[in-house]
Amino acid sequence: MTPPTFLPLAEDPAPERRDAARNRDAVLGAALRLVDEQGPCAVTMDDIAASAGVGKATVFRRFGSRAGLMTAVLDHTEAEWQAAVISGPPPLGPGAAPMDRLVAFGRTRMEQTLAHAELIEAAGSTTTRNRAAYSFIAMHVRHLLRELDVRGDVPLLATALLAPLEAVVLRQQVEVEGLSTERIAAAWEDVVRRVVAG
Amino acid sequence: MTPPTFLPLAEDPAPERRDAARNRDAVLGAALRLVDEQGPCAVTMDDIAASAGVGKATVFRRFGSRAGLMTAVLDHTEAEWQAAVISGPPPLGPGAAPMDRLVAFGRTRMEQTLAHAELIEAAGSTTTRNRAAYSFIAMHVRHLLRELDVRGDVPLLATALLAPLEAVVLRQQVEVEGLSTERIAAAWEDVVRRVVAG
Repeated sequence: MTPPTFLPLAEDPAPERRDAARNRDAVLGAALRLVDEQGPCAVTMDDIAASAGVGKATVFRRFGSRAGLMTAVLDHTEAEWQAAVISGPPPLGPGAAPMDRLVAFGRTRMEQTLAHAELIEAAGSTTTRNRAAYSFIAMHVRHLLRELDVRGDVPLLATALLAPLEAVVLRQQVEVEGLSTERIAAAWEDVVRRVVAG
Repeated sequence: MTPPTFLPLAEDPAPERRDAARNRDAVLGAALRLVDEQGPCAVTMDDIAASAGVGKATVFRRFGSRAGLMTAVLDHTEAEWQAAVISGPPPLGPGAAPMDRLVAFGRTRMEQTLAHAELIEAAGSTTTRNRAAYSFIAMHVRHLLRELDVRGDVPLLATALLAPLEAVVLRQQVEVEGLSTERIAAAWEDVVRRVVAG
């Protein structure tokens, strides 16, 4: 009699796949930590490989290129921020008044964009990711404007409120004009309150 | 006796310099016409040289590169629009009510940016030009907001109103979301009126 054969279980990946996943996590973790400490431009692939305890070839095998790894870092931090918006504590997450959520959204989005401006450049132009991230923030702001009973062309009012949070606008203000993020955030909140007051 | 020598007069350039200036004008004129007719991506340096009645080497001698010529085209159209803002007919130029001027500013700036989005890409990243153009529009909007007695952080309110007119925002709306420029302009006017009403 031949022994019974089993279909492979999804929960039981081959050792090669487990190693690959472990390496991927180690590299991504090292990249997140080093980018946070040194900024994306200063971090080398050698540093990341050494910190993750893998060979540089493994880094390239798992992420394709430096830009690919920076995209993964960006996607990870974006996903964490989105999770905080959807289900994190108030005022950013649910449970606060819509205006308080909107103000918290603007402040944290601004910090996120400024912190990641270099990373966005290092990741290169990945239109698909940009569109997915943009769809999320546009849906969220429209939802809050409707909760605030704003009348008019709500989708386009949302776009107009999101425009000052674009990297190109924020970087001009911070890096060229030398404005503080506190002043920029206060002005954004003022615009939001004027638009909502209608 | 030797004949008297004269210093060259500024009004009497050497024939080479007159030719150079004439060629430059002919090339720029041809480039403006062809970019307007065909869009900047479709226009070749051969087309421009042939239309200007000069050799291709002359085009490169006068403008350095394709990007250099596209920058000159962009500078020329930007200067024409700025002249219309400063001293053209109302409502864009002086003589209209500040709110009418602001609305006309937004509409023409939007058209300008959308028409030139490809040209801005063809000209490459020329930060100095961008900053000069940005300074002009920022000064103009601040001036009109002050004329409208807007209270608050006027420079940053101006920035917030200019942000939806950035190429990256307008192209997303027109090219990705398929929105009409009429709807975008109407929403911008709505935001302006809400911000001014305070």
